[in-house]
Amino acid sequence: MKKIAVLTSGGDAPGMNACIRAVVRTAIFKDIEIYGISYGYEGMMKGQIKRMHSYSVSNIIQRGGTMLKSARSDEFRTKEGRKKAYDQLTNLGIEGLIVIGGDGTFTGAKVFFEEFGIPTVGCPGTIDNDIYGTDYTIGFDTAVNTALEAIDKIRDTAAAHDRIFFVEVMGRDSGYIALECGIGGGAEFVMIPETATDLKQVTKSLKNLRKSKSSSIIVVAEGDEEGGADEIMEKVKTKINDPEKEFKVTTLGHIQRGGNPTARDRVLASRCGMAAVEGILSGEKNCMAGIVNGEVTYTSFEDCITKTKNLKDDHLKLIEILSI
Amino acid sequence: MKKIAVLTSGGDAPGMNACIRAVVRTAIFKDIEIYGISYGYEGMMKGQIKRMHSYSVSNIIQRGGTMLKSARSDEFRTKEGRKKAYDQLTNLGIEGLIVIGGDGTFTGAKVFFEEFGIPTVGCPGTIDNDIYGTDYTIGFDTAVNTALEAIDKIRDTAAAHDRIFFVEVMGRDSGYIALECGIGGGAEFVMIPETATDLKQVTKSLKNLRKSKSSSIIVVAEGDEEGGADEIMEKVKTKINDPEKEFKVTTLGHIQRGGNPTARDRVLASRCGMAAVEGILSGEKNCMAGIVNGEVTYTSFEDCITKTKNLKDDHLKLIEILSI
Amino acid sequence: MKKIAVLTSGGDAPGMNACIRAVVRTAIFKDIEIYGISYGYEGMMKGQIKRMHSYSVSNIIQRGGTMLKSARSDEFRTKEGRKKAYDQLTNLGIEGLIVIGGDGTFTGAKVFFEEFGIPTVGCPGTIDNDIYGTDYTIGFDTAVNTALEAIDKIRDTAAAHDRIFFVEVMGRDSGYIALECGIGGGAEFVMIPETATDLKQVTKSLKNLRKSKSSSIIVVAEGDEEGGADEIMEKVKTKINDPEKEFKVTTLGHIQRGGNPTARDRVLASRCGMAAVEGILSGEKNCMAGIVNGEVTYTSFEDCITKTKNLKDDHLKLIEILSI
Amino acid sequence: MKKIAVLTSGGDAPGMNACIRAVVRTAIFKDIEIYGISYGYEGMMKGQIKRMHSYSVSNIIQRGGTMLKSARSDEFRTKEGRKKAYDQLTNLGIEGLIVIGGDGTFTGAKVFFEEFGIPTVGCPGTIDNDIYGTDYTIGFDTAVNTALEAIDKIRDTAAAHDRIFFVEVMGRDSGYIALECGIGGGAEFVMIPETATDLKQVTKSLKNLRKSKSSSIIVVAEGDEEGGADEIMEKVKTKINDPEKEFKVTTLGHIQRGGNPTARDRVLASRCGMAAVEGILSGEKNCMAGIVNGEVTYTSFEDCITKTKNLKDDHLKLIEILSI
Repeated sequence: MKKIAVLTSGGDAPGMNACIRAVVRTAIFKDIEIYGISYGYEGMMKGQIKRMHSYSVSNIIQRGGTMLKSARSDEFRTKEGRKKAYDQLTNLGIEGLIVIGGDGTFTGAKVFFEEFGIPTVGCPGTIDNDIYGTDYTIGFDTAVNTALEAIDKIRDTAAAHDRIFFVEVMGRDSGYIALECGIGGGAEFVMIPETATDLKQVTKSLKNLRKSKSSSIIVVAEGDEEGGADEIMEKVKTKINDPEKEFKVTTLGHIQRGGNPTARDRVLASRCGMAAVEGILSGEKNCMAGIVNGEVTYTSFEDCITKTKNLKDDHLKLIEILSI
Repeated sequence: MKKIAVLTSGGDAPGMNACIRAVVRTAIFKDIEIYGISYGYEGMMKGQIKRMHSYSVSNIIQRGGTMLKSARSDEFRTKEGRKKAYDQLTNLGIEGLIVIGGDGTFTGAKVFFEEFGIPTVGCPGTIDNDIYGTDYTIGFDTAVNTALEAIDKIRDTAAAHDRIFFVEVMGRDSGYIALECGIGGGAEFVMIPETATDLKQVTKSLKNLRKSKSSSIIVVAEGDEEGGADEIMEKVKTKINDPEKEFKVTTLGHIQRGGNPTARDRVLASRCGMAAVEGILSGEKNCMAGIVNGEVTYTSFEDCITKTKNLKDDHLKLIEILSI
Repeated sequence: MKKIAVLTSGGDAPGMNACIRAVVRTAIFKDIEIYGISYGYEGMMKGQIKRMHSYSVSNIIQRGGTMLKSARSDEFRTKEGRKKAYDQLTNLGIEGLIVIGGDGTFTGAKVFFEEFGIPTVGCPGTIDNDIYGTDYTIGFDTAVNTALEAIDKIRDTAAAHDRIFFVEVMGRDSGYIALECGIGGGAEFVMIPETATDLKQVTKSLKNLRKSKSSSIIVVAEGDEEGGADEIMEKVKTKINDPEKEFKVTTLGHIQRGGNPTARDRVLASRCGMAAVEGILSGEKNCMAGIVNGEVTYTSFEDCITKTKNLKDDHLKLIEILSI
Repeated sequence: MKKIAVLTSGGDAPGMNACIRAVVRTAIFKDIEIYGISYGYEGMMKGQIKRMHSYSVSNIIQRGGTMLKSARSDEFRTKEGRKKAYDQLTNLGIEGLIVIGGDGTFTGAKVFFEEFGIPTVGCPGTIDNDIYGTDYTIGFDTAVNTALEAIDKIRDTAAAHDRIFFVEVMGRDSGYIALECGIGGGAEFVMIPETATDLKQVTKSLKNLRKSKSSSIIVVAEGDEEGGADEIMEKVKTKINDPEKEFKVTTLGHIQRGGNPTARDRVLASRCGMAAVEGILSGEKNCMAGIVNGEVTYTSFEDCITKTKNLKDDHLKLIEILSI
């Protein structure tokens, strides 16, 4: 293999740039020509593909976002669309593809590989941490810390006024971010999709808060079955029915997607990026390079997409015990 | 004067603790007994008043929130309520009062002074920076930087996906926070209550964005006459009517009220706190200690409440010119 | 067991407070009386031991440092000293001990257990990450991120002036911190005690830096055999002997020991703290509760002290490849 | 005037990029061709001058460092050197020059203007805040906050171990940074060049620290007449002569020069940059555009270089009173 290309797709995540950098410099180190595709699969179809060099990725390791941009592509979901993309790659003689994104990205990559056979290796880039085949995804640690810093600030103002704050965090259909920053933020409760939320219990506890604990924080994952933070706050407020208690809601939103990546995300991104290139050069394909138990692991796109990662048992117990 | 008391009231602001610390230690330095009142005017009526010492305020200079807490008080708006408060103070022999808060706090202080004559000096504690008699209020610099860090993160994700983001910041009825973080965040537009928002112009500009500028940030002050960020986004989206453009909204909310105070807020809080005590001991009363043009200035509560501070002329021009 | 005590010892590390909180609340949750010992073993001998409650640990999860303080104790190294400590514990009926610290702390705990038989379980609290029996120590992630933020700032000024910066980070005799922030900071080289530092190679590379890469950062672990950053800078400067190249040194020092703990450190601290109490109540003793491969693991103090954790193979390779 | 150029010179400071951006976009807004000179006066002599556009300065407002780089230039101190520079400017038809830097930069600009008459307007870019003609310099607020965050972290570890920390901060021959972060960091003492440092008094106070205040922080400006933090620590340690007290030193170094600029620095940089261009187009020359008492002010280079700004009276008093 002498020419490979790299793209980022799906929701952006801090650390994607560090991953691109690792891919580019590992390729160059091994005398492989490396091309960057802008705007994900959409750009691949349109031929927005450019040669990259060592200096192309200077000073990006600490930047959030992705220098290659990202975009949705409805056309890539069609056979014609993917044929266009294939033609663009073969025109330039590109023989391998590195895709950085979430399982939406890997779904597209899997189909593309099955149709056209261009070896593809992925890197797990998403803040949601809901990808099987890697303990952590690139961007998760940063998103959790961003949410946690916000919760620390909310704690200041909640304590000043004895308020109960419902804070909504991202996560799509998973509760990873909510659980981590719930534990780290000393939350009373964390409401996540993976476990049934018992509003009766929440209400009961809030009514009986320890006298010296007049302010509380409840973290809500955006995918919780009882709704978002706004909805849940209204439900709880109604059940509690106590005019003395003040309720507020904050939805953290897109700040969780940006910002300089943390050390963990930069190292994870670098390890995965290097492993993806080394993998593709030694025959890996149709799989993702992730880190499991500290070691580089290649997991088929199929498994990444279909299998589920379990939450840690003691995490939920921690919330219950440590908020007394 | 041998005994004074201090309280915090209104919305909390980062730097209030640094101000309390300055008040307490300046009093002690001058051999005055200092008492801390918890929960603002409400606590003053209930007698939640405790003696404070040097060590009471150790290690709080960097903390957000207020160790004396804050609370609304409907009862203090009544003559009977204020009589209760007065009795509590005279019971302990308290001869002077330092109040840290916004103009709601000063309104209450002014009425209280006019009725009972206890000398009162205020310190400007609010993130909104809308108090006359001081160039900056305690908490404003921190709130602006918190909003700015959030906007920097949003910029990463906006650029990755070519989106137009509407970001709502606090400010009650003023545009100070919006303007400062609009300039600092390189926003396309800043919508503030002080100037009429021309949605036609906003729409026209967004339609004609420089080709290389595919993502934009528009900062909206919560008090803008066209509504909050949600409302304005919908109005603009409808006017633009272009399915290719993606719009998102983030409301920063209460994170702007918390967090460790910046250097400016700690120094401002310390200067105001010390000046308030020195002022009250040298006869100042019914006024606020603020900093104007770098110097300590005492301004009557009356003026603080009724007069308006002007925005800087070149600030709005900056937004227009620097976003090209 | 009905009464246990907790102390922190050795160099402080961010997350120690979160660990104390987890120990205290887990104990209370399980109806165990929990005592806090101030100033480590020194305080244990002097009887600086106080009952703790749920509210004792409110609002400390995000604070750096340790509310129980820490101190060296020469006297505890003597049999008489340890006898005093034992008497203090038995006076209060304390039947179990949780010690949060590094292997110096565990060495003392092991000897104390062997002499007096009070069950003791440890939690790994040190920024150096050099303790066997846990993938990460409490405080490591925060220290790495602190060093990394500093390196990001140095990168700005290095690039502005085309300078070569030698940055010294902590780590005692290990290179964990240096390696992580070297990778995350995009350093040219990382000099650590675990591998021989070849100054000839460093010199050669710096002479031949890619034309577009005129500024560089070299991370030096404080325990490197060639000396600290000052020494190494002088050696390299002499070897390079080029008046056009500018060299600077920054020793990050004690900022790496403080600051609010990151999310990872708070969660790790909470898991270890809870596991230590659950462990001691179910018969664990003379061991440390750590997290290995994501799961709670109890490792004998003996192994913690004598065995060595290996650095990851690909980490050093990353530095070489990604700095081209 | 149809063509102007801009350069950055001297020590880099956070906010320089925001200033460059304001200069570039204000020029373009007013239909002026704008050129960027790299590497300061050195680059001006070598003709490292390139046309700049609106997109040249996209996404730099939040970046530390300077995209135009900076360098010393011994040759520019000679008549021949300056002649070369003049020729480079006239070759391109450049009629005006904006220089962003400290008084070293203005000294060079003043001489250059007197010799060749090209209108030059400066912007105050240095972290030291020691330039007359502006209340604050671009980069000062960020440097103070960087130092303050470091001091907050040191406070954690100092308190954990009851240590006395000497922290050295930048400032060249002035004590501005030391004073601001001394007040904001709750330091015991601040040692600055502007006032005689009485080591006897420092020693006496440290010996008699309030019993509950066992840890202290002393901020030392690098230009203090008693030496740097290392030297002063040794002197004080010797005088105190108490083996129970532990002393540590941290020299913050170059982290104070980098990092993302704060809100104040971005707004100040933007205001000064825009004012410099507006000024040069309306006839200002041989002067600096600064902000005094909130308003744009033009001050001759002569005054900037020769006159001194006074420290605020109450600042030193604050340190004394608030550290009791």
